[in-house]
Amino acid sequence: MAAFFSNWNDTIVALATPPGIGAIGIIRLSGGDSISIVNSLFASKDLQQQPSHTIHVGTLKYKGVKLDEAVVSLFRAPASYTGENIAEISCHGSPYILQQVINACIESGARMAHPGEFTQRAFLNGKMDLAQAEAVADLIAAHSFAAQQTALKQLRGGFSSDLKYLRGKLIEFAALIELELDFSQEDVEFADRSQLAGLIAELNEAVTHLLSSFRLGNVIKNGVSVAIIGSPNVGKSTLLNALLNEDRAIVSDIAGTTRDTIEESLNIHGILFRIIDTAGIREHTDDAIEQIGVGRSYEKMKQADIIIGLFDAVKDDVQEVLEKKKLFDAEQLQYLLVINKTDVLGEETARQKFSGLDHPLLFIAAKQKEQVRALTQNLYETVVSGTINTENTIITNTRHYNALQKIAGCLNDIKAGMDSNSPGDLLALDIRRCLYYLGEITGQVEMDRDILGTIFGKFCIGK
Amino acid sequence: MAAFFSNWNDTIVALATPPGIGAIGIIRLSGGDSISIVNSLFASKDLQQQPSHTIHVGTLKYKGVKLDEAVVSLFRAPASYTGENIAEISCHGSPYILQQVINACIESGARMAHPGEFTQRAFLNGKMDLAQAEAVADLIAAHSFAAQQTALKQLRGGFSSDLKYLRGKLIEFAALIELELDFSQEDVEFADRSQLAGLIAELNEAVTHLLSSFRLGNVIKNGVSVAIIGSPNVGKSTLLNALLNEDRAIVSDIAGTTRDTIEESLNIHGILFRIIDTAGIREHTDDAIEQIGVGRSYEKMKQADIIIGLFDAVKDDVQEVLEKKKLFDAEQLQYLLVINKTDVLGEETARQKFSGLDHPLLFIAAKQKEQVRALTQNLYETVVSGTINTENTIITNTRHYNALQKIAGCLNDIKAGMDSNSPGDLLALDIRRCLYYLGEITGQVEMDRDILGTIFGKFCIGK
Repeated sequence: MAAFFSNWNDTIVALATPPGIGAIGIIRLSGGDSISIVNSLFASKDLQQQPSHTIHVGTLKYKGVKLDEAVVSLFRAPASYTGENIAEISCHGSPYILQQVINACIESGARMAHPGEFTQRAFLNGKMDLAQAEAVADLIAAHSFAAQQTALKQLRGGFSSDLKYLRGKLIEFAALIELELDFSQEDVEFADRSQLAGLIAELNEAVTHLLSSFRLGNVIKNGVSVAIIGSPNVGKSTLLNALLNEDRAIVSDIAGTTRDTIEESLNIHGILFRIIDTAGIREHTDDAIEQIGVGRSYEKMKQADIIIGLFDAVKDDVQEVLEKKKLFDAEQLQYLLVINKTDVLGEETARQKFSGLDHPLLFIAAKQKEQVRALTQNLYETVVSGTINTENTIITNTRHYNALQKIAGCLNDIKAGMDSNSPGDLLALDIRRCLYYLGEITGQVEMDRDILGTIFGKFCIGK
Repeated sequence: MAAFFSNWNDTIVALATPPGIGAIGIIRLSGGDSISIVNSLFASKDLQQQPSHTIHVGTLKYKGVKLDEAVVSLFRAPASYTGENIAEISCHGSPYILQQVINACIESGARMAHPGEFTQRAFLNGKMDLAQAEAVADLIAAHSFAAQQTALKQLRGGFSSDLKYLRGKLIEFAALIELELDFSQEDVEFADRSQLAGLIAELNEAVTHLLSSFRLGNVIKNGVSVAIIGSPNVGKSTLLNALLNEDRAIVSDIAGTTRDTIEESLNIHGILFRIIDTAGIREHTDDAIEQIGVGRSYEKMKQADIIIGLFDAVKDDVQEVLEKKKLFDAEQLQYLLVINKTDVLGEETARQKFSGLDHPLLFIAAKQKEQVRALTQNLYETVVSGTINTENTIITNTRHYNALQKIAGCLNDIKAGMDSNSPGDLLALDIRRCLYYLGEITGQVEMDRDILGTIFGKFCIGK
């Protein structure tokens, strides 16, 4: 696989900590020359002579100019994250200084790392399989307990080890069936067909289970986007604030205050909801910039997983609700219909005013934060039935999902072939296809350079 | 000094890297229990048995729940930044996970660190003097070569060692003069008055030199704010883009496009300029939100170090320029008058149109980036005469500047006292005052808790 990467003997460098000002910032180098490059900048002692897993304090200098007082950590191959020599430089957290140190490393022979290249090298050096490498990116992006636990489980190999075990057994059958082909004149069966049928059933059950976990996995990994849609002054920003319990959006009485869409995160029982406050949808607006904002609202609405259709108990009526409901249905959206400002009209009066709709309504007073908790519970139940058990294996990755769908198709073909007693060479072909897709998940097969590029390109620089 | 800090035996914890998503994030603990607290979360081996300056890879667990796969670095007292036991946990850079690990540390006995508390402990444990501690904050905030070099010099103690040397000599004289007081009946002089006069002159020269470096130091440390002021559509955003050489501000033909003020940084010969693009100042605007924006422009204008008064060569005339000039003069602002759009009117015609003003004018074509370099050179020369020599000691800290001003006052009093042969006890009093202010810079005297709180409160959390 190394052949794909013409430059993978280079020593790479990148900032490993988030950009911005902090107490410390870390620059990471990996590759054969990483320790000698850092040593050439390190004025205080000879790092080349130091053992692995040690820490050294000293002054960084480049071309006679002092760069920083820094701490260098050494990890020698193969006992490192990438399996190569790694040096980590812990500097004062000034973006300016960090940039200068990175430049000095580059001028001393390192090159800038591509996104995910450290983890890609770990994969290529056999430190982790592909599904584990992908879990690293998921772990970094984890924003909830459920996302963290599923990523940690995958990082530990929990999910790929099951697949590897089943793949190993299937390889045995493939070998036996291919052996039969060599003796095709003699009508022998080395591979026990009923045992094979059992294995295929076992694989099928595992794959079906994994596939069905993906809807929840997707929710756990990516969160759920919720767009609040409604006429101007219906209380969208007030509802956002009530949901977040803080004053994030600027609330005013001037219709059209919210121009840009505002997105905030809300954690409900371990699932991340991204609540999007949109510009009010008005029929007419003279303001060119605000018109752009309204256009964005429609965009956000169509992209959202769930819509909160928000109405004013006083100003809106059943007709208004019906029209919006028709719009949501036409776009095949998932939505909650919520009547706001029951504090002004009174809840009973509001319930009577909006009775007769064939869709459940929620009545809230966003300003007073009344019934807002019922709304959050409703949001949660819309995406998750029951509680989430992160002990179960849950698929969170679209690439895995697609591969599993292809595996399910192959298993189906194998089963159909066995049922119709199709010849061994066709059966062997289907099994080989199945093995390929199984291997694609963990990276056990020779993979397309573009696919690997896509996988690691999603990582942040420095990982 | 330790008595000021009732809780300084606590073990403290904080995120040391910038907030946000990155490859890795670092959590730092300092204090007697830091290693045992991290050990209680570290499932993989016994960290208590490990030597200083070593690195350990393993799993973090709290109450049976896995938190992350992490790398722990150990620094044992006194060979650490704070002089106390330090443990640094390098986690995957997910804000969610980092928060969970910090929470686990707190529930295991650490408490959240105050801003600058790590460095404050380093100061209290004698690892650095106060001026060096302040240089740490300056280094982190360094955004230019000049700022980095002055902070590194101060961190190394270059500036405080001079003051400490002179202070030491002054203490000798103070002791001798106080000794004279014990023998006041006998009219003896232990302290050689001419030597004292020499020392006072030497101190005075050093202090005068340091005081005069402060204007440049302030520019180096804080940068220079530049507000671009002008009527709508005069090309303010276009000029900002030309200065930055990129498209940061949204440029459109609709007057009033820029509502919020936009601030961008520009590094000219090692000095940071913060260029502020303001909403156009219009006489009338119906848009309430835009009015807020215009109000902010006036604010920014008054706060800026330099104003660029920008005019349209076609639409504006001498009268317009004179009016703005009067406004700038009335507010006692430093400003450059710049005529834009010479590409439309022609530079010669523009020069004739605006001739007869008693203030130099710059003629540019922002859209074509013509003469924009002359403008940046002009900005630089407005704040710095000649090149900056960072080898010289430069005062960058307002607290030091104020202390030095008081020292200059004391030195004046001592000199006047000696000239008028005032009695030894008065002289001794002035010298003691002078010694106090000298010690305040480096933290060699018992200092007010509030002063220390102010100094370290400006640090970021985790340093």
